[in-house]
Amino acid sequence: MNKVGYLGPKGTFTKMAVDGLFDEIDSVSYKTIPACIDAVNAGEVDLGVVPIENAIEGSVHLTLDYLIHHVDLPIVAEATVPIRQHLLVHPSFEGDIGDIEEIYSHTQAISQCHQFIHQNAPQAHIEYTASTGQAAQLVLEKGARTAAIANEKAAREIGLKILKSDVHDYPNNHTRFVVLKQDSQPLSLEHTEKNGFKTSIMVTLPRDYAGALHQVLSAFSWRQMNLSKIESRPMKTGLGNYFFIIDVNQEYDDVLFPGVQAELRALGCQVRVLGSYPTYVVSDEKIKQLNQ
Amino acid sequence: MNKVGYLGPKGTFTKMAVDGLFDEIDSVSYKTIPACIDAVNAGEVDLGVVPIENAIEGSVHLTLDYLIHHVDLPIVAEATVPIRQHLLVHPSFEGDIGDIEEIYSHTQAISQCHQFIHQNAPQAHIEYTASTGQAAQLVLEKGARTAAIANEKAAREIGLKILKSDVHDYPNNHTRFVVLKQDSQPLSLEHTEKNGFKTSIMVTLPRDYAGALHQVLSAFSWRQMNLSKIESRPMKTGLGNYFFIIDVNQEYDDVLFPGVQAELRALGCQVRVLGSYPTYVVSDEKIKQLNQ
Repeated sequence: MNKVGYLGPKGTFTKMAVDGLFDEIDSVSYKTIPACIDAVNAGEVDLGVVPIENAIEGSVHLTLDYLIHHVDLPIVAEATVPIRQHLLVHPSFEGDIGDIEEIYSHTQAISQCHQFIHQNAPQAHIEYTASTGQAAQLVLEKGARTAAIANEKAAREIGLKILKSDVHDYPNNHTRFVVLKQDSQPLSLEHTEKNGFKTSIMVTLPRDYAGALHQVLSAFSWRQMNLSKIESRPMKTGLGNYFFIIDVNQEYDDVLFPGVQAELRALGCQVRVLGSYPTYVVSDEKIKQLNQ
Repeated sequence: MNKVGYLGPKGTFTKMAVDGLFDEIDSVSYKTIPACIDAVNAGEVDLGVVPIENAIEGSVHLTLDYLIHHVDLPIVAEATVPIRQHLLVHPSFEGDIGDIEEIYSHTQAISQCHQFIHQNAPQAHIEYTASTGQAAQLVLEKGARTAAIANEKAAREIGLKILKSDVHDYPNNHTRFVVLKQDSQPLSLEHTEKNGFKTSIMVTLPRDYAGALHQVLSAFSWRQMNLSKIESRPMKTGLGNYFFIIDVNQEYDDVLFPGVQAELRALGCQVRVLGSYPTYVVSDEKIKQLNQ
């Protein structure tokens, strides 16, 4: 049985990704993204799952930077999970939203529900917590007239009532997670919905000049390779030095990718493949099923 | 006197940016990035300062997404602030790092000091707080054998002792902040070090096809306009739809930029100028001076 590390505690969106991806595993919770990545690197766990885009609990930058600067672990899979925030109250609460005096949650979750709170509970005092799970725990302890913004997993595991579901301001909110492993063999999961294949590449420019990035992209463009994402990130050597993370919508092959790499290296760029991996979707239905 | 809103509470890095940029102002603290941006939009404050890259308290994505989807406020200045984390203890503490039993801080700050803690205080239990300021407050209350990771401003304002300074793992850590205003007149600050001028543009592609981004960058490249940053962000309409934020290292002019915009629109892209603004640096010396 695989041992899977993830950014915890239980009730986080990362745990929802883990439960949505894997059927029978032994899961281990880590308190920070670096601690989880270190555990994979040290062989404490076989796989590690951490957020990489649009997360509540962690920052994409932290994950990317740690992968680039501290370890050399390939990405072997990606999972996309829908983010739904709910307003949770104590099971004994009988009033409505206007009766709530305090709302607890993580600062990112509060921000994601800014419009909702502003329109429906302007009277409530906002109190920040270190995680959405901790907010739910506080409501269980404090009881009447308090509410938490958290996911349905927290409601179920901690024993709160959902007063209003889907209180997040944007309807199509998703978080992307990556699965890390010591060897680069793509992770094949039979029971999870697969929606494609991606290859992530890091490119460091030899120097900062007008048109350098345009030249880099030419290597992909004339081969008609479609990029799904591009992001510049500062090198840790000071401001103004950037490298690029490029996601290509196809599997690493023996012709196109080696061609791109050879051309970019001839231009003086450093090139590193961060992983070539299947992308999975954890659907709303799957999450509902897990929460029953 | 200008009224300036910022992401608070006091002791945050955003407040350091505000103090570093402005001499005589009336400052107002807001609890979230959306609340601060809304305040500028509603005219409650004249200017608003929020983090946009590599922040502790907030996420760049949140700021960008709110600017793009909720308001139409121009960026009128940028400020770069060095991020230094210190290990703070109660003024009565007499031991050394090995005697600390509990360390409090925000999850991002803990992550930024992951290697330091791992090597110097492996015995310490880590407790997460909603902000670095709250962590410092806890140390003041709990006293002996506890420590907080926070900045020097928190040490000074809350009255803690710096046991070890610069405990962050990366030496060149910076956060970029943007200043927002209702009109797009660039903000001219005489007493702050200026290091350039930037124009930020948002480009939405008409559809997702191989080489589309390469074509967009061609409009900048053949004019020898240097890009300092490019980032793709998902549209809120669902996964797979992206727009691009492009930072160009020069002032908006009457020839080059209108030419770029006309060409991109002819390709079917939507183009929006997010601001053309001076970039300021809050130096280490300035921060030391403010903390005296």
